[in-house]
Amino acid sequence: MKIAVLGGDGYCGWATALYLSRKGHEVAIVDNFSRRRWDDDLGVETLTPILPLARRLEAWRQFTGRVIEPFVGDVTDYGFLSTVIEAFEPDSVVHFAEQRSAPYSMIDREHAVFTQTNNVVGTLNLLFALREFKPECHLVKLGTMGEYGTPNIDIEEGYITIEHNGRRDTLPFPKQPGSFYHLSKVHDSHNIMFTCKAWGLRATDLNQGVVYGTITDEVALDEALINRFDYDEIFGTVLNRFCIQAAIGHPLTVYGRGGQTRGFLDVRDTVRCIEIACLNPAAPGECRVFNQFTEQFSVLDLALMVQNAGHKLGMTVHIDHLPDPRVEAEQHYYNARHSRLVELGLQPHLLSDSLLDSLMNVAIRYRERVDRSVMLPRVNWRDPRNRVGSPRTSPARNYEPGIAIETELLVERKAAGVRGD
Amino acid sequence: MKIAVLGGDGYCGWATALYLSRKGHEVAIVDNFSRRRWDDDLGVETLTPILPLARRLEAWRQFTGRVIEPFVGDVTDYGFLSTVIEAFEPDSVVHFAEQRSAPYSMIDREHAVFTQTNNVVGTLNLLFALREFKPECHLVKLGTMGEYGTPNIDIEEGYITIEHNGRRDTLPFPKQPGSFYHLSKVHDSHNIMFTCKAWGLRATDLNQGVVYGTITDEVALDEALINRFDYDEIFGTVLNRFCIQAAIGHPLTVYGRGGQTRGFLDVRDTVRCIEIACLNPAAPGECRVFNQFTEQFSVLDLALMVQNAGHKLGMTVHIDHLPDPRVEAEQHYYNARHSRLVELGLQPHLLSDSLLDSLMNVAIRYRERVDRSVMLPRVNWRDPRNRVGSPRTSPARNYEPGIAIETELLVERKAAGVRGD
Repeated sequence: MKIAVLGGDGYCGWATALYLSRKGHEVAIVDNFSRRRWDDDLGVETLTPILPLARRLEAWRQFTGRVIEPFVGDVTDYGFLSTVIEAFEPDSVVHFAEQRSAPYSMIDREHAVFTQTNNVVGTLNLLFALREFKPECHLVKLGTMGEYGTPNIDIEEGYITIEHNGRRDTLPFPKQPGSFYHLSKVHDSHNIMFTCKAWGLRATDLNQGVVYGTITDEVALDEALINRFDYDEIFGTVLNRFCIQAAIGHPLTVYGRGGQTRGFLDVRDTVRCIEIACLNPAAPGECRVFNQFTEQFSVLDLALMVQNAGHKLGMTVHIDHLPDPRVEAEQHYYNARHSRLVELGLQPHLLSDSLLDSLMNVAIRYRERVDRSVMLPRVNWRDPRNRVGSPRTSPARNYEPGIAIETELLVERKAAGVRGD
Repeated sequence: MKIAVLGGDGYCGWATALYLSRKGHEVAIVDNFSRRRWDDDLGVETLTPILPLARRLEAWRQFTGRVIEPFVGDVTDYGFLSTVIEAFEPDSVVHFAEQRSAPYSMIDREHAVFTQTNNVVGTLNLLFALREFKPECHLVKLGTMGEYGTPNIDIEEGYITIEHNGRRDTLPFPKQPGSFYHLSKVHDSHNIMFTCKAWGLRATDLNQGVVYGTITDEVALDEALINRFDYDEIFGTVLNRFCIQAAIGHPLTVYGRGGQTRGFLDVRDTVRCIEIACLNPAAPGECRVFNQFTEQFSVLDLALMVQNAGHKLGMTVHIDHLPDPRVEAEQHYYNARHSRLVELGLQPHLLSDSLLDSLMNVAIRYRERVDRSVMLPRVNWRDPRNRVGSPRTSPARNYEPGIAIETELLVERKAAGVRGD
């Protein structure tokens, strides 16, 4: 199957591209390296030293004999994107090529406007390019569980049947996104749904939970293939950041009481979910939604699990409760359905001590590269005039150090133990 | 009350600005004349000869002694917009300043992308400008009934209480918009709802039905104050277009069977609804939704009413059924609640023969200006490669003249009879 991975140089995109390539698919990566540029702009970098795309792809070819074709350009440039679709003729397009950080979108007006125009225009361009050059191609679009917010009813997979005043209809599940980024994904979802109906396009919208982990079988082949591992306040996601914080003896930074509950999944399940979607395409005209996560946890659950895993490694791990910089309920009902990918064959990697162990060991291995100054939240949802540019250029807001850092790194394990499974 | 009317040089905006000014409010108009420019680009013009804004405002001052301050610029330019908010310090901002035509947004990719970026960025800018310079200002935002689509359940005003698996929550009403324009309004609605919650802004989202009529008490004062009257396939709305078609002896162009049912209102009710919203502001943090229409009709209902009104004037009016260029149900359930504005004091002008009469007489008065070539639908929802620029530059698609045009204009009435009430 010919699969184009838009955003294939990013965190989920890179893992996905290698996985699909190893599984025998003909893979192309489409990327403009904006993820690397945002790091530069913010003055942060991935914990792991990732190579330029061309060198990553060359290493992949050397280790596996498989070729992944790169197309370097911006999906908001229709001329570029339509040429890629016309030239590569994909059977599936996996669309990760968006600005994917909620805090980034909340920095200020410019970042909010950029996030929404970048994401919405990129997706509109893709829909038009498919319509024009490959209408039978299956769009596999990454959405987010954050589109739903935290309603007081069970969250269904994309649609809900509503009985109202004696009548009934199945309608898009109501959305309550909590940042300009999450809003951009809701905008995309509506745009995609419309074009499936109007033009007969076929799409699977994967509302993904929070991804954790960094190692997949493919990136573990060699350090040249290593994946991103982000821990800064803007692009770091909660579990990965907790593991790094534990490994370097920084308190785990829980926002508020930590009762915020979300869906989570291992990056090894992300790549498998994508393949499952590609192998089981939506019908023409169908806009299908899968909730792509495997387990629900509260933020405090995760902090306690990381603390416990640290203990087993002989570390002392403290938990700090910071004022929540986001506008979100700190305690709420949360029950989201996520059965459709399992029905299609997903066998989840559930969160385990060994995975936490693995993440902490990656952190230990690269701890010389850790910048402690970028971990604390400075982007405040209630005040859109946070600051532009590097998080280092202005002092932390709302942060009073809680418990003194006492953690000692007592254990270092060999790099051979880095694999998460 | 100080009220800024964004888009105050347009159809609803102009009528609203004059009405609010006459009612004693201090009114500013913010406009970049893009509505006039789109006419130029498309090679069409309003039936009625409207004057430049400065001359309209001078006439208003002469006839009423009241001053409306113009701010000329683009709401997608944050520097401009924020300066206006800072300088004028409005109590309410009425936001009409968007690209408001569904067919325009469906012309091709460029028009779709323009519509969504123009509307979404303009509204984001306004939200940020209010947050920064006038957070207590009440945003009165024009949405559209088209955001809801045509669900098989009753349409509520913005929110619906859902019982599901034994639990209950009140959530945003699910949206099924039917064009890139309608989608842009849904994007706006989500963005506004979020900023009310995150920043405590106060907003009323008016989901307006299809507006008809052209005469209000204010614009009737003198021809220098005349309002737009659009009848082309892009910016013309259905009832206004039918009246012009009847007046000039052109068959009424019903799309498909004509069972498409929508909410409608008289432009005299539009202006009153806006004032009601301004005088009864949302609470800080509240995002309130009113459905702003007074009656439901199917397209065929309207055609038959216009045919009947024409008969009474001695005209022969034919009805043509054209293939529906849109993707929409031609027969469907439709029942939308619209009680909140009435509860606040709206006294509807229901559709009457005298209103139809009035519209036909405006058409007769300006019939030398009618361009018959711009009335037929050429923008096809299923094919986004319609054509760019003037509708005159390419032949009509999908149109086979139905019944020969036999209508004779038997009656001309004096301009004094033009008023609709």
